Amino acid sequence: MHSVRFTAETSSNGVVERDFLVGEIPGVLWSPVAGSDHAPLVLMGHGGGLHKKTPALMDRAHDLVTTWGFTVVAIDAPGHGDRPRSAEDERTRADFREAHATGDAVRFKSISIRYGASLAERAVPEWQATLDALQTLPAIGTEAPIGYGGGITLGTAIGIPLTAIEPRITAAIFGGGFFAHEALIEAARRITVPIQFLLPWDDEHVDRQSSLALFDAFATKEKTLHANPGDHRAIHWLGLDTEFLPRQLGAISTSPA
Amino acid sequence: MHSVRFTAETSSNGVVERDFLVGEIPGVLWSPVAGSDHAPLVLMGHGGGLHKKTPALMDRAHDLVTTWGFTVVAIDAPGHGDRPRSAEDERTRADFREAHATGDAVRFKSISIRYGASLAERAVPEWQATLDALQTLPAIGTEAPIGYGGGITLGTAIGIPLTAIEPRITAAIFGGGFFAHEALIEAARRITVPIQFLLPWDDEHVDRQSSLALFDAFATKEKTLHANPGDHRAIHWLGLDTEFLPRQLGAISTSPA
Repeated sequence: MHSVRFTAETSSNGVVERDFLVGEIPGVLWSPVAGSDHAPLVLMGHGGGLHKKTPALMDRAHDLVTTWGFTVVAIDAPGHGDRPRSAEDERTRADFREAHATGDAVRFKSISIRYGASLAERAVPEWQATLDALQTLPAIGTEAPIGYGGGITLGTAIGIPLTAIEPRITAAIFGGGFFAHEALIEAARRITVPIQFLLPWDDEHVDRQSSLALFDAFATKEKTLHANPGDHRAIHWLGLDTEFLPRQLGAISTSPA
Repeated sequence: MHSVRFTAETSSNGVVERDFLVGEIPGVLWSPVAGSDHAPLVLMGHGGGLHKKTPALMDRAHDLVTTWGFTVVAIDAPGHGDRPRSAEDERTRADFREAHATGDAVRFKSISIRYGASLAERAVPEWQATLDALQTLPAIGTEAPIGYGGGITLGTAIGIPLTAIEPRITAAIFGGGFFAHEALIEAARRITVPIQFLLPWDDEHVDRQSSLALFDAFATKEKTLHANPGDHRAIHWLGLDTEFLPRQLGAISTSPA
């Protein structure tokens, strides 16, 4: 088993940010300056083509650290961020851009599904290795409750198969922006933990029915669909339940309502 | 114009409940014992076959009064609660029960739509007359911001055409459980105020696509769909944004998030 090798540390506004490597997987850990022994740990996924320190992801991570004292971790998906890209990654990304540029929706969808599934197949064991390594840190250990803090699009394409096979994850945030192909629907059907599902109502590329079918598939009765107008790249969430993870991970008691 | 004629008054747990008549329309007004000059006024609709003092409706009314200091009003829909039923009301209700008992989904849907549209046609001017009368009360006046606090099913079938033509309503809560026939979709297309839409994900009678089409139709960009598993008669809302009306009606400042 790989251990966590810290490579850099900075802090600002009460948040310590530590870059790390688990084997060859580059990650980043955010935690309160004041310490956070066995605080809930939230795994954050990034969108397709993005990386572990995408501004929107960091905003949410900082908020979870400063408001709830959580620890948050993000890793680069294969071929993303600081990771090398294989010839196949490069070819797929070029195909992807071309399908997007030429407006070939059928090809765009087929590449999305194939590439997303391929990334998930590699990313799931990487997340598990990262979790194994993080749990050897005294400040985290095996007592910290673990949630998947989401990300729509690729973060969901990876998070769903991960949550389906990883019993350490006890609550998860997923969302739209990714085609719900059969394997993803199958994985969703095996998920029994509480789910918050964020749906951009007017996604330019991904049909709404596909995302609704994904929400429908989750086996849990504790699932909430939250939709607002907008595309996944430009969405303003209105009245979102930002206490979903804190409630599920035990940071605040569940209200009887 | 009719005035408000109060017929009974009780109070409990800090909430004054006053029964009233506006012409022949029986209503009930809930307000804080401590007074509530020009506080936001929330119009509450009840479900089909129910009435203005249905327990779930009263729970929400009490909550709005005690938590936010709001005034809440409910009236009986035509043929509901304390109102007389016409021969046609009785015939329709008997048809309705029969369609339900025999499991005749097509007939059930057709009666629902026809009866709902007929009730809405009568209820909309009744709500407007009630509003006119309530605004002559010094504690309400024309300064109190007004929201429609919903109710799914019949409360939505009446609330949508009401909100579409009533400029005094500046925010509304609607929901599923009622067939989105063409006239209702048309009314939704004229609504430009912020909307919270509550969807029971597994309604036994009303197909999901019908409710999703209704949400899609609202002309406002400030609309949120919130769905949880369950039928409209047995639904437990999870992580619902209960500050939607307080925010929209100015009881709390809008958060920048």
